[in-house]
Amino acid sequence: MGKVICAGLGPGDAELMSVKSDRVIRNATHLAYFRKKGRAGQARSIVQGMLRDDVTEYPMEYPVTTELHFGSDGYRDQMVAFYEEWADRLETLARDHDVVVLCEGDPFFYGSFMHLHTRLQGRAEVEVLPAIPGMVGCWNALDTPFTWGDDVLTVLMGTLPEDELRTHMQRADALVVMKTGRNLPIVRRALQDTGRLADAWLVEKGTMPGQRVARLVNVADEDCPYFAIVLVHGQGRRPEAAQ
Amino acid sequence: MGKVICAGLGPGDAELMSVKSDRVIRNATHLAYFRKKGRAGQARSIVQGMLRDDVTEYPMEYPVTTELHFGSDGYRDQMVAFYEEWADRLETLARDHDVVVLCEGDPFFYGSFMHLHTRLQGRAEVEVLPAIPGMVGCWNALDTPFTWGDDVLTVLMGTLPEDELRTHMQRADALVVMKTGRNLPIVRRALQDTGRLADAWLVEKGTMPGQRVARLVNVADEDCPYFAIVLVHGQGRRPEAAQ
Repeated sequence: MGKVICAGLGPGDAELMSVKSDRVIRNATHLAYFRKKGRAGQARSIVQGMLRDDVTEYPMEYPVTTELHFGSDGYRDQMVAFYEEWADRLETLARDHDVVVLCEGDPFFYGSFMHLHTRLQGRAEVEVLPAIPGMVGCWNALDTPFTWGDDVLTVLMGTLPEDELRTHMQRADALVVMKTGRNLPIVRRALQDTGRLADAWLVEKGTMPGQRVARLVNVADEDCPYFAIVLVHGQGRRPEAAQ
Repeated sequence: MGKVICAGLGPGDAELMSVKSDRVIRNATHLAYFRKKGRAGQARSIVQGMLRDDVTEYPMEYPVTTELHFGSDGYRDQMVAFYEEWADRLETLARDHDVVVLCEGDPFFYGSFMHLHTRLQGRAEVEVLPAIPGMVGCWNALDTPFTWGDDVLTVLMGTLPEDELRTHMQRADALVVMKTGRNLPIVRRALQDTGRLADAWLVEKGTMPGQRVARLVNVADEDCPYFAIVLVHGQGRRPEAAQ
C-alpha cells in the first residue's frame, strides 16, 4: 500500500523548495505533474536534474486551458472528466507504491492538485507537503518588507469584477493580484481609482531565471503574462524614533 | 567583506525550511536570532542539532514584549534603541564575515527582521531567504484546500478595531487572523456577526510538536496564545459535475 504525496515546489527556484519536498522528489519512483499539452511543463522543469534514472513519469495534460472560458459548460465538462480520470489513475497506482505529484507554489493555495485532493478522499492516503507560495517569491524578489504591524493583506484575482477589485483595494494595506494577464487594463484602472497605481509592481518569474521586476505604470497592457503577479506593499506601524 | 543573510525558517518543522536556508544555517559561523529574555527562543529551537560546533551565537533579546502597550512611547523608545543597537552590531560583524540571522516564517511577512533590514540599507550587504509563512503551515495542518478559483483571501491582525475586522470579514472569502491571543473575544464576535464563526478554526504550533487544531467555537476566550492563527477556508469556484 502506497500513498499519494503532493510535493509543493515553491515559487520556482529549486533551492527554495522544502528539505522534505526535495527528499521526496529525489526518491520518487512514480512522478505525476500537470502540464499544458505539447509543453515540458513548469513543474517538471523545476525538478530537472533531481530525478532517479528509473522514475516513471505521468504527465497530466490539461484537456483545455484558455481556449474555452472557465465559466462555460464545455470547460467544466472537460475539466471534470480530466480530474476524475486522474483521480482514478492515482488511486490505482497508490495501491502498489507511493506516487509523488508535483505542484507549483503551495498546493492548498489556489493549486490544481486540490481538485484531485477532494476526489481522492476516502480512496487513497494523501499527504500534502506545503511550500512557499508564488506570491512570497515575488515579494522577496522586490527585496523590501511586504507587510508590517497591523497591515491588512488582501489577495485578489484579476478575473474579479472591477467594482469588487476597487472595493478591496480601497480597504486593504498590502495587495497581491494574481491571474492578471489579459485583465491588466481592468486591474490597472481599479488601482488608479483607489490611488494605489503609483506603488504597484509587476513581478514575472519571481526567483526564476528570466525574473522580471517592473513598476506597473511602465508595463504595457498587452505585456502581462497570466502568471505575473501585481504587488503593492503595506506601510504599517513600525517603531521609529520620535520626530 | 561578509554580508547579513536573513534565513527564513518557515512554520516550525525544520524539514519545511528551504534547501537554501538549511544549507546556510548548517554552514553558519556567526548566528543571530531574536528571543524573549530568559527564553531559549523559538527560532533557535527550530535549528537545534543543525549548527556547527564552532558557531558563535548572538541572541538578540527584546527589551520588552507585552509588558508595555505597543502604542506607548516607552515601548517605541526601547524598541528603536534595540533595533539600532543590533543594526550597528550586525554591520560591524558583517565587515569580516557572513552573519546569519534566523527569522520564523517568511522574513518580509510581518517579520521582526524587517526593522533591521530597513536600518541596514546602504551599510551592509543584506540577503533575505524566503520561507513558508506560518499561516501556510497552519492551513496545511487542516489538510483541506484553503483557497480556490476567484476566492479573495484577507489576512487580518486580531489587534485591529472590531468594525474594521467586521468589514473585511464580510467581504473576503478565505480569512486568516493572526495576533489573536487576548483579542479572541473581539475576533470571535466579529466572526459571529459576519456569519463566519461556525467555519473558523484555531491552529496553534502548526507543523510543530504539540500542534493543536480546534474549531474556534470550542476554544475558550482565555485559551488562545498570541501565535495561534484563526483560519476560515474559501469555498470558491471549482469544476464540478453538473447537478
